[in-house]
Amino acid sequence: MNTKQIISEIKEKQPNIKSVVFVGCGASKADLYPAKYFLDGNAKKIRVSHYTANEFNYATPEAVDDTAIVISASLGGTTPETVEANARAKAKGAHVISLTRSIDSPLTKDADYVIYHRFAESYGAKLEKMGYCLELAMEILDQFEGYDNYEDMKEGFEKIYNLADNAAASAKLYAKKFAEDYKDAPVIYVMSSGATHEVAYATSICLMMEMQWINSGTFHSGEFFHGPFEIVDKDVPFILLMNDGRTRNIDSRALTFLDRFDAKTTVIDALDFGLSAEIKKSVIDYFNPMLLSAVFRVYAEELSIARQHPLTKRRYMWKLEY
Amino acid sequence: MNTKQIISEIKEKQPNIKSVVFVGCGASKADLYPAKYFLDGNAKKIRVSHYTANEFNYATPEAVDDTAIVISASLGGTTPETVEANARAKAKGAHVISLTRSIDSPLTKDADYVIYHRFAESYGAKLEKMGYCLELAMEILDQFEGYDNYEDMKEGFEKIYNLADNAAASAKLYAKKFAEDYKDAPVIYVMSSGATHEVAYATSICLMMEMQWINSGTFHSGEFFHGPFEIVDKDVPFILLMNDGRTRNIDSRALTFLDRFDAKTTVIDALDFGLSAEIKKSVIDYFNPMLLSAVFRVYAEELSIARQHPLTKRRYMWKLEY
Repeated sequence: MNTKQIISEIKEKQPNIKSVVFVGCGASKADLYPAKYFLDGNAKKIRVSHYTANEFNYATPEAVDDTAIVISASLGGTTPETVEANARAKAKGAHVISLTRSIDSPLTKDADYVIYHRFAESYGAKLEKMGYCLELAMEILDQFEGYDNYEDMKEGFEKIYNLADNAAASAKLYAKKFAEDYKDAPVIYVMSSGATHEVAYATSICLMMEMQWINSGTFHSGEFFHGPFEIVDKDVPFILLMNDGRTRNIDSRALTFLDRFDAKTTVIDALDFGLSAEIKKSVIDYFNPMLLSAVFRVYAEELSIARQHPLTKRRYMWKLEY
Repeated sequence: MNTKQIISEIKEKQPNIKSVVFVGCGASKADLYPAKYFLDGNAKKIRVSHYTANEFNYATPEAVDDTAIVISASLGGTTPETVEANARAKAKGAHVISLTRSIDSPLTKDADYVIYHRFAESYGAKLEKMGYCLELAMEILDQFEGYDNYEDMKEGFEKIYNLADNAAASAKLYAKKFAEDYKDAPVIYVMSSGATHEVAYATSICLMMEMQWINSGTFHSGEFFHGPFEIVDKDVPFILLMNDGRTRNIDSRALTFLDRFDAKTTVIDALDFGLSAEIKKSVIDYFNPMLLSAVFRVYAEELSIARQHPLTKRRYMWKLEY
């Protein structure tokens, strides 16, 4: 069943959907963000919220009932908090859709609908979790409220995976340079805006802290001037994931400041990878996070090589009960 | 006009309010979070969103029209992005309520309603921005959908400011110890959960990065195990703002892990300051951020003294155009 059919079947069961609740942990939580951002910005009736799974479990929103769609994600399908969130959502009568790459994993148990995505096959495949979730959001908006740019979005989905794959392949040399420049950085900040806000977040808490044990902080680039910019000094390392879309000016303003004070800045700019040549302006905002995720993955891989610290190396995860 | 009268007048003008949008920057954005969290968790019909002001300006949500209430905040009332957000909201017909301490400041120009709060007078006064915003959220919920715990909340508001003032006063010795222990820390992480999530955020980006130029990162304590915890090692400095309420288990789980690996952990626990003796269990979640903000302010003050770095010291703010 594709995303359109899933939403259409839910609508037959419950024409009066009031809330969409996105639930996940870590990178899987962040992968839900573009869909959440899309609905926040475009819906006029449907409520939208986004929780780390245990927040959902311990303080379950009142709106979770048979008028709610709960969309959850877990790469391996075993994240205990997210599995529990599905059970709670189901017990309250919500329509549960889950994204995972693992057939019959625990996450699928209480899901009414499961969307399987790929991951390891290619840079593009790594984006399917984020992309299918955004497709679900698009279907929800279109089927329950109507969406004028539906065809432009559909066309975007046909192009983004290849575009991201090609962008990632073309980024290797820049990524090697980044890795050499940042391999000894004691701390690295990551920021972005718009739909890409939580790609910056995942880059910071997963790629930097979890997978490289590098100290890191992250914030929306619009928040940069309201606190974080006072940390800027010569050689303080920043990564700016720069959007080609409505919030570009927010990212640019931060970049101008970083350059003015000689911060050690790495910019990954969607404009450089031809996003606007392939994706219509009406919907380009929502495709930035996919492109920028794919490109930054190459940067993280090169960093792990330069630091001789594999991305899969862990101190605690997979080794302990906690 | 008090918060009840403001919402009642808006309801007379527009009985069909569909969305509440919270807009601010930095600490003022974070001060709106408990209200946003309250509505996310308790409303069943009203849509809720929360933006840093330039995100709202460059990608204004479609729902901003005469069925929306926009609630904005700026301490001095001059934050340019937030002032502009008010103008945009007003131009689209939204009902604009603003919180500031500065009479007739630019923020008040396009606000239909202004709530003035105090700030410098006491630790309790610093909480009024957050508290009045939460009161607005409570009134919106009660008047548009009904709220069973309204009287418990009202009673909480009568007690929280004094309670927070007393808690702050009693924290001084612990705060001095913290300041001695953390004054040379190269990086400090801050986390919390529930309604207090963005108190942790503001502590990190404002009190640490902006006001002390200390490297810092922040995340929800439920996210700790999904990335950030791999940074934990002996003596890595963490601050945990611990809630007395439904999400306490999330904070406790993080604390257990930090203790197990001898991280340098400072816990500020709402339980220690008697929150549950004064605030009813039905609504206690929403008062944690006020209490914990007041107490941590004392910690930040002591840190600034130990580091001989006043909280008002800036490199860029107030000194440059940017």
